[in-house]
Amino acid sequence: MDTPDPNVPPSPVTIADVQAAAIGLQGIANRPPVMTSRTLDATTDAAVFCKCENFQRAGAFKFRGAYNAISQLTDAHRERGVLAYSSGNHAQAVALAGRLLGVSTTTIMPSDAPRMKLKATRNYLGPSSEVIVYERDEQTREALGAQIAQERSLTIIPPYDHPHVIAGQGTTALELFEEVGELDALFVCVGGGGLLSGCAIAARGVCPACRVIGVEPANADDAARSFHAKTLHTVHNPDTIADGARTPSLGRWTFPLVLANVDDIITVSETEIVLALKFVWERMRLVIEPTGVLALAGLLQIAQSTPSMVAGKRIGVIFSGGNADIQMVAKLIAKAGA
Amino acid sequence: MDTPDPNVPPSPVTIADVQAAAIGLQGIANRPPVMTSRTLDATTDAAVFCKCENFQRAGAFKFRGAYNAISQLTDAHRERGVLAYSSGNHAQAVALAGRLLGVSTTTIMPSDAPRMKLKATRNYLGPSSEVIVYERDEQTREALGAQIAQERSLTIIPPYDHPHVIAGQGTTALELFEEVGELDALFVCVGGGGLLSGCAIAARGVCPACRVIGVEPANADDAARSFHAKTLHTVHNPDTIADGARTPSLGRWTFPLVLANVDDIITVSETEIVLALKFVWERMRLVIEPTGVLALAGLLQIAQSTPSMVAGKRIGVIFSGGNADIQMVAKLIAKAGA
Repeated sequence: MDTPDPNVPPSPVTIADVQAAAIGLQGIANRPPVMTSRTLDATTDAAVFCKCENFQRAGAFKFRGAYNAISQLTDAHRERGVLAYSSGNHAQAVALAGRLLGVSTTTIMPSDAPRMKLKATRNYLGPSSEVIVYERDEQTREALGAQIAQERSLTIIPPYDHPHVIAGQGTTALELFEEVGELDALFVCVGGGGLLSGCAIAARGVCPACRVIGVEPANADDAARSFHAKTLHTVHNPDTIADGARTPSLGRWTFPLVLANVDDIITVSETEIVLALKFVWERMRLVIEPTGVLALAGLLQIAQSTPSMVAGKRIGVIFSGGNADIQMVAKLIAKAGA
Repeated sequence: MDTPDPNVPPSPVTIADVQAAAIGLQGIANRPPVMTSRTLDATTDAAVFCKCENFQRAGAFKFRGAYNAISQLTDAHRERGVLAYSSGNHAQAVALAGRLLGVSTTTIMPSDAPRMKLKATRNYLGPSSEVIVYERDEQTREALGAQIAQERSLTIIPPYDHPHVIAGQGTTALELFEEVGELDALFVCVGGGGLLSGCAIAARGVCPACRVIGVEPANADDAARSFHAKTLHTVHNPDTIADGARTPSLGRWTFPLVLANVDDIITVSETEIVLALKFVWERMRLVIEPTGVLALAGLLQIAQSTPSMVAGKRIGVIFSGGNADIQMVAKLIAKAGA
């Protein structure tokens, strides 16, 4: 059982990669606390442990992957600099990781990105780094990114589809297991699958019996469909408040890793996302962005539909980020009623 | 130096009382994490440690004092039950502490208390406990409370002016020192002075060199005036968003304890409170209520007006509670601008 099957290609990301990433991030990434809630435990009849990546540097788990990827570039690549395109948390993560590592960064963001995220990304920038704003209607970011990267010999740091990014994100779950011990199940949000595949690899490595469940907005269910059909499905500009999950599909690296290491992917409605947001802001007193509560929304759904799956169990939940638009979330919570 | 001066009456609350309260609260109160922020440290040029009582049971430090006070009643008093009047966090704290201790509670709340707080208090109620709603225009809560307490032989648990309440609140600072070690200064909000006097006694006991600074809204500056004049001043229905600091004055117990143990009381404007709220929600990703950021507002003021007082120092800040009206805070933050 312990000798590798010669017919199975070696995984591009292993628990050893995640563990190495964790060592590289020591003292650099925050080690956000794990929060619990008596109300949440009572609601689910489980012991629930929430890893709070809203307290991560630059406000989301994305910093882990960005830093791990940039730190592993060759000196020559580091000297030339890196490029990222993102309207969200990956942009801030790359800007900050680049500054910390002394690598210049070029970040391509759409002109209609939230002003707060544009401002935050600019604030994180190091020397000879810049944010390039483009018009979403006139150009695709991939085309623009590829063009600028080629012109300037920059290395593209993708938001999820890269082994070093995946290994970095996996350190989130690794820390959770280190802190709370064994878990029966772990709920993780899915966008492009970087966090989900990384966390699943960590779980397989240190707590093999733990079921790993991805949670995706029903309005952007490409990963759930891909997982169940075992063929890559895509969505186009899905309409969900969980903006971090608006990615068109799982990636070339993340899809097979998700298939190999994840137990299930479930979907939640927009209403379920809002109710999870309301619970987290009102009861747990945490500022989490809509994408960040997907995992909790999934747990709450299962606790209601199939209580036996969680009752009496030890459950991990990853709150992936806290870069919330406070005005928007307040309106969503108000609409959800008392 | 170690023999007590016979001319000085013994303090009604000592570090031993705070330490005893801490033992009584072990495993019952939450031990909320201490959060730090690189941005806050950079802004103040200090190392700032924030004790997050927004994560306390019932959402605020009030649970500590309420539980400590009720737990020390005689069996006869416990059997008859307790009464509290409060429009805010003390009501919820007494309801929950009573339920946990098997003591029936009667809580008197004004009919115009926030619906969320009425609902939360009712949710915490144990058996044979109730919330009595009164019309603020027709009755004073003190008169109504005294009448009902007498009719039903209930013991009144005051929100701050009681040695056992003060000792309970002091455990907040005790935990902070236990967790982070020595501090050069500690910033604490002031309403009736229960938290401030308790925390000052804890500081005197375990870290005597630590300066303890109370922070009050300028619009409700009775404690600051009382402190500097050494005579009790009062305010009537002060107009401040920090509703927990709308108390009319320091108390019979808290005033002398504040005079004896606190180094200074400073005031902050409503604008300074909103800017602190905005910082905490947007940058620290914590849901804290307006009263809960008073201490931080005071630190930010000093860091700007007298940087040498905090630069290079180790500073404690107490975030006192998280029972925020999300809609109201969102509006305040929006008005404050980008």
